[in-house]
Amino acid sequence: MTSLTTLPADQLAERLTALRADYEDLRAKSLKLDLTRGKPGADQLDLSEGLLGLPTSHKDRSGTDVRNYGGLEGLAEMREIFADLLGVDAGDVIAGGNSSLTMMYQVVTWLLSHGGPDSPRPWSQEETVKFVCPVPGYDRHFTMLAELGIEMVTVPMHEDGPDVAAVRALVADDAQVKGMWLVPTYANPTGAVTSTEVAAELMAMPTAAPDFRILWDNAYAVHHLTDVETKSADALGLASASGHPNRPIMFASTSKITFAGAGVAALAASTDNTAWYLKRLSYAAIGPDKVNQLRHVEFFGDADGVRAHMRKHRDLIAPKFSAVQDALGARLDGLGIATWSKPIGGYFVDLNVLDGTASRVVQLAKEAGIALTPAGSAFPHSNDPDDRNIRLAPTFPSLGEVETAMAGVAVCVELAAVESLAAG
Amino acid sequence: MTSLTTLPADQLAERLTALRADYEDLRAKSLKLDLTRGKPGADQLDLSEGLLGLPTSHKDRSGTDVRNYGGLEGLAEMREIFADLLGVDAGDVIAGGNSSLTMMYQVVTWLLSHGGPDSPRPWSQEETVKFVCPVPGYDRHFTMLAELGIEMVTVPMHEDGPDVAAVRALVADDAQVKGMWLVPTYANPTGAVTSTEVAAELMAMPTAAPDFRILWDNAYAVHHLTDVETKSADALGLASASGHPNRPIMFASTSKITFAGAGVAALAASTDNTAWYLKRLSYAAIGPDKVNQLRHVEFFGDADGVRAHMRKHRDLIAPKFSAVQDALGARLDGLGIATWSKPIGGYFVDLNVLDGTASRVVQLAKEAGIALTPAGSAFPHSNDPDDRNIRLAPTFPSLGEVETAMAGVAVCVELAAVESLAAG
Repeated sequence: MTSLTTLPADQLAERLTALRADYEDLRAKSLKLDLTRGKPGADQLDLSEGLLGLPTSHKDRSGTDVRNYGGLEGLAEMREIFADLLGVDAGDVIAGGNSSLTMMYQVVTWLLSHGGPDSPRPWSQEETVKFVCPVPGYDRHFTMLAELGIEMVTVPMHEDGPDVAAVRALVADDAQVKGMWLVPTYANPTGAVTSTEVAAELMAMPTAAPDFRILWDNAYAVHHLTDVETKSADALGLASASGHPNRPIMFASTSKITFAGAGVAALAASTDNTAWYLKRLSYAAIGPDKVNQLRHVEFFGDADGVRAHMRKHRDLIAPKFSAVQDALGARLDGLGIATWSKPIGGYFVDLNVLDGTASRVVQLAKEAGIALTPAGSAFPHSNDPDDRNIRLAPTFPSLGEVETAMAGVAVCVELAAVESLAAG
Repeated sequence: MTSLTTLPADQLAERLTALRADYEDLRAKSLKLDLTRGKPGADQLDLSEGLLGLPTSHKDRSGTDVRNYGGLEGLAEMREIFADLLGVDAGDVIAGGNSSLTMMYQVVTWLLSHGGPDSPRPWSQEETVKFVCPVPGYDRHFTMLAELGIEMVTVPMHEDGPDVAAVRALVADDAQVKGMWLVPTYANPTGAVTSTEVAAELMAMPTAAPDFRILWDNAYAVHHLTDVETKSADALGLASASGHPNRPIMFASTSKITFAGAGVAALAASTDNTAWYLKRLSYAAIGPDKVNQLRHVEFFGDADGVRAHMRKHRDLIAPKFSAVQDALGARLDGLGIATWSKPIGGYFVDLNVLDGTASRVVQLAKEAGIALTPAGSAFPHSNDPDDRNIRLAPTFPSLGEVETAMAGVAVCVELAAVESLAAG
């Protein structure tokens, strides 16, 4: 196909007429489809139905009654499973409640209210606190920082992780730059995997702030879409080796492994960081839901049980990701108006449309009954300076719905582009 | 018996000798008993064993898949059960995770970081923030405030609730006094029940701070020890009627109803307060564990199911509370050296020993293998100015252990008193 960006005006006008007809056909279908959030489908949740009859015991390996109070750090056997999956020591893992987002929020708020183990003072006593945010990124990371009054400075996210040179430049001299978000494996939304080389540089780079933190949100560590089971970079080991053991704080959960609302979350970090976290937590909680942790331990047995389980997820969702590729490729390949990621893991496809048309695409889709994540939501303050990024989340709808929705999205992408090009 | 406080010196010396012999007999038993925390016994936890096979469905009444993300406010049917138990509207209830302590912590930290709906500014921007703390009270309430840099000013806790005149005097002119703790029903540790009259005064009293909050921790609302099923004062209704609808924020949980570590917590408050709470929460969480909420809904059916369940708890623990009364009465009645509460609900017996001897009693007990809550822990910064208060928690040990432990505690109380009196 010919790139639309070089079409003469009369041909653009023709194309616009044809596309408007396609779009009216799409609207006539009165669709009601939703590609907004990275939610597991009901068939994925069914994979964990066995959890509902567990646990069969109410004592953990140490003989502790999991039904009673206590045990802030979580069950040893649950921590071991996370440790194996994340490539860290079980002693560095804390197994918590149902939300890793909550653990991230706790960490940021406690850094603000108390400072970390190596902070000269609570972050809230700094004039300004800034975070480095690779973009596009995870909207909830950004809204959390905005809520807490933290400024965000963006760097590009590449195929092998964040732009290290840009990060280095931001952190080297400005002591107000206290932290950084990173989804290292199958990033939300680009699918990028941070390489060991990039991770090593991030852990070793000089920072003006002595208490710089990388919030390493490994939400998709084991969420492979192919038989390439990518191993995450060893953040804790790299940080320790370069003399910055307290820099990374790692997060993960079983939200997209078992039940999205009723899984188990975890945090992994240096001894100083975990002691600091548990000390703060001790004023806010008596212990996590250990019954739910034991439920998960009995269900999986061990980390290999989790890995086997993830292959069942892959079998269910890989076809949906293929359908996204097929629909976008069928309509948009070669038109020069869109690029999109081909992730081998995670929950999203990252679509970049013609500059200045993302909002229009989302609006057109909405009017055709296809809900997309709002344009710009992968950027701090929802501000995509190029208005071109759209996050697609194909797991929750059925395969047929994904096919229908994505064919529709492709029409909207092309229509918005041609509208824009025709307008000159 | 004669009061020991008026015994002549020679008789005191004799008594001391006899008591030392009793104490050596006690030590010779090499006990290992623990009356420190308000934890349910294993037999109490067994009452809820049926939870482990639930839920049988994975949809709530509205058809929502409880296994997936979302629903920050909790399941409607769970909120209705709490509403019935707490005497509030279901629309004013938020059903959360496994810990009401966590919800309290969230409320206090968000008042600090953002202020409430009627705050002129975030509390953290005030020079000083103070809380009124009825004493003796719950140690975790006080340690939380200390952690968050909030000053505590104490008022006496009476049989019908906090000393209202003392509270009024503290809040009337000092705008730095922003809040107050209260366990209204079967208070920790005194067992006091705040009367409707006292509650009405607390909700109506003028406060210098426009955003004064009463954190109404109704942890023991349905935890009756007799067939007198005391009804809690209607905090939200009284507050609303007196023009201060946002003053109270109520907390409760099923921690001492089902599983102490794996129950469901709740918050109830005005529309402004719940909207404010949910807004803040939306940056920290995607939703509570709805599977566990449905598990509880299926287990209880309705609020009457909870009430029937609580009668089974009563049958198990009322004998332990009687054993405490019997042991203390048998040794200490009439000696003029100790008084203790006779609670008709809750989890504690509050023991006041001879002034200046509580620490010594706890030490003596410890050396005899009986762990008691540290002296003073029912006061801010663990500072009991009279060194006389000891909290007894008889639910976790077996009945036989409570009998043995309390007989030992009574020896320690008398020994410490006579040591003190003999020393002049």
